Amino acid sequence: MLCGQPVVLQIPEGDNRQRKVCTGCDHIHYENPKNVVGCLLEWRGKVLLCKRAIEPQLGYWTLPAGFMENEESTLEGAAREAYEEATAQCDDLRLFAVYNLPRISQVYLMFYGRLRDGFAEANEETLEVGLFDESEIPWDELAFPVVTETLTRFYEMRDQRDRRVYSADILSKPGAAMDVVRHPD
Amino acid sequence: MLCGQPVVLQIPEGDNRQRKVCTGCDHIHYENPKNVVGCLLEWRGKVLLCKRAIEPQLGYWTLPAGFMENEESTLEGAAREAYEEATAQCDDLRLFAVYNLPRISQVYLMFYGRLRDGFAEANEETLEVGLFDESEIPWDELAFPVVTETLTRFYEMRDQRDRRVYSADILSKPGAAMDVVRHPD
Repeated sequence: MLCGQPVVLQIPEGDNRQRKVCTGCDHIHYENPKNVVGCLLEWRGKVLLCKRAIEPQLGYWTLPAGFMENEESTLEGAAREAYEEATAQCDDLRLFAVYNLPRISQVYLMFYGRLRDGFAEANEETLEVGLFDESEIPWDELAFPVVTETLTRFYEMRDQRDRRVYSADILSKPGAAMDVVRHPD
Repeated sequence: MLCGQPVVLQIPEGDNRQRKVCTGCDHIHYENPKNVVGCLLEWRGKVLLCKRAIEPQLGYWTLPAGFMENEESTLEGAAREAYEEATAQCDDLRLFAVYNLPRISQVYLMFYGRLRDGFAEANEETLEVGLFDESEIPWDELAFPVVTETLTRFYEMRDQRDRRVYSADILSKPGAAMDVVRHPD
């Protein structure tokens, strides 16, 4: 991988599972879950959603979220994604939920915050942005189960206004019935 | 990387940062932060610590923790690490803290739980295990700043017994002065 030779699957010494090991330089190529960081931004009681301009789930609505990058914090990543997907700035971000998606080896870290000045606009990654009341959320056109779960939990718990952090395993695929195991609050 | 040809650094179309791109098959090799999952396990008021048998920080005390693996949840990973590092089983794990370590592109997800039957023992990864009262914690021999911060926060908040999840950026290196930015609770 570093030296350009092929890799083979083998269990390195002292390890207990197969890794990709380079046949040229013995470099071990570990593969681990990836974090997705994102946010639910509120402005005057409405929530910011983005209609995706890219696959997967092009044309469906999502909360701003994307893969965390090296050398940033989860919070910085969530704020970056809000800007990249909706040209949005955010204030007072705090961790809202941690979701395990073991089927696809992802962990979502979703933050809650305020949409600064109520401003957002579409860009390369987004066909359209919108601010939605609870009654206006397009539940049947949400891109991912993790988006559905985050919005569901947000409205369930909205009146409590505490700083609880929610946790759940999300096992369903996009478009299929919701299969969520919530951890005790 | 998949085809055995060298990779070059370039910005893929639609992206905004340099990635490793294969000169043979155009495969983009993304590099993202890795999660470390671990736990603080309590038994009759004492906390389980492990003396590390492997580098880095060999001989220093740590909470059981290690890299999260594909196809597991954060909670499953934390329980797995407790078994791999201390032959320990745990009950009632719940998320305790999320730490950003942007300097080394890691995110720690630390859980709190009970050590089943008070049983733990050393193994290949651990020279020695111990159950410590607060007054017995070897503060000067802890392996990593994230361990120090987790134990500090645990004892500060112990009497509150709430289910709050803590969050902080940990900027210090092992052995150097603590440099921690706590996020608002």
